[in-house]
Amino acid sequence: MNEAPGRREPADATTVKPPMRDALVGAAFQLFLERGYEETTVDDIVALAGVGRRSFFRYFPSKEDVVFPDHERCLADMTAFLGEDAGTQDPVRRVCDAARLVLRMYAENPTFSVQRYRLTKKVPGLRAYELSVVWRYERALAEYLRGVSAGVRADTLRADVVAAAVVAAHNNALRSWLRSDGTGDAEVAVDKALGYVQRTFGATPAEPVREEAEGAVEADDAVRAEDVVVVVSRRGTPMWRVVREIESAFARD
Amino acid sequence: MNEAPGRREPADATTVKPPMRDALVGAAFQLFLERGYEETTVDDIVALAGVGRRSFFRYFPSKEDVVFPDHERCLADMTAFLGEDAGTQDPVRRVCDAARLVLRMYAENPTFSVQRYRLTKKVPGLRAYELSVVWRYERALAEYLRGVSAGVRADTLRADVVAAAVVAAHNNALRSWLRSDGTGDAEVAVDKALGYVQRTFGATPAEPVREEAEGAVEADDAVRAEDVVVVVSRRGTPMWRVVREIESAFARD
Repeated sequence: MNEAPGRREPADATTVKPPMRDALVGAAFQLFLERGYEETTVDDIVALAGVGRRSFFRYFPSKEDVVFPDHERCLADMTAFLGEDAGTQDPVRRVCDAARLVLRMYAENPTFSVQRYRLTKKVPGLRAYELSVVWRYERALAEYLRGVSAGVRADTLRADVVAAAVVAAHNNALRSWLRSDGTGDAEVAVDKALGYVQRTFGATPAEPVREEAEGAVEADDAVRAEDVVVVVSRRGTPMWRVVREIESAFARD
Repeated sequence: MNEAPGRREPADATTVKPPMRDALVGAAFQLFLERGYEETTVDDIVALAGVGRRSFFRYFPSKEDVVFPDHERCLADMTAFLGEDAGTQDPVRRVCDAARLVLRMYAENPTFSVQRYRLTKKVPGLRAYELSVVWRYERALAEYLRGVSAGVRADTLRADVVAAAVVAAHNNALRSWLRSDGTGDAEVAVDKALGYVQRTFGATPAEPVREEAEGAVEADDAVRAEDVVVVVSRRGTPMWRVVREIESAFARD
């Protein structure tokens, strides 16, 4: 395969020119940090990157898009990943794994992600842009869940709620990592957050349930999922039957 | 104030003139429906309402805001409602009740709500505006939940997930009602959707848990919450203690 024109082609043998798209993102962020987002024009960006305006708009529909250069690709990756599903996996697990694709995009480049986080917090227009991206991720997850549940009305509700829960858990961990300036292991934090959603909604529910009444068996977050047995019973079920259920639950695995 | 030209306002004493704010909303929607949102300017709106530009901007910071005239009030109502909480109620129930304030705002005026829904779907800028409003509701709920859990790290995760679940459930029912042109009982639909969230996360958990293994006690969605007893137990808890828990659960209420 031939080299793509304009991609990684050194002018001399020692320097590597970044692809034009990366150069535009780099120039844009340099200016955003130096002057501020609002004060930077697309003309400023292309001047610094040494390319024409048309090149900018070939890659980015607007100035806002250069702030989030990888979301479109990530959305496409997520949709493809969900589309590959052969239906053999727990759907809740599948959407959690899909959300991890977003996390990985952020974790690939902590410095850039933290800079962008700070910028986004300061510029309402970028905040709105980010909300619309988050909404598209959430819809992609919800559409997948609606699809696997074959459109039963009650299941569209569950699909929307689970998708929102996955996004909220993911973003809780992601933002906490961004606020800590990208220190610590983002993947571990997100795994933990998504684990909570999986335990709550997944095919193998083991989320500790809090009982209010005194004397109830307490289950705190430190209890490992495998250590907890959940028994659901209709009121009025004979006690012997409940006991048998619990015994068989203990006996399983 | 002068009569608005072009509006069905007779000069006699028997009619009540709508407040200026309502007149601006009415004029704006009349024009949005006739000409389209993008094609209508603030100047067009104030001309039809018979007021000056300054009057418009006294009530609405921008043209977008006139599309959603009640969200600021509703957000304030929600914050006040959550702030009133004496801590005696299940917090999940409280945030569900807070979400019902939003539903009530929509249900108060079905025709207007349906018109706006259609308009918002067509105009990306309004969609973005709506997402930011939804985000502010979600944050209000999450902040309340974080507050009642005193900022424990694991509980900020739970707060964010529950808030997102409440908003998703509310919007699932609300959108379904809007898509049906405001027919049917929106409150019943939202109650049902929020009931699912309450059963999943509330202090009185009664969400039917699906057991995969054969022979497990089945609990389907048709079982009323009060008819189901959930017992959570650490593996290894002596059976007599589990039985005592179940018996006391049956005895409660």
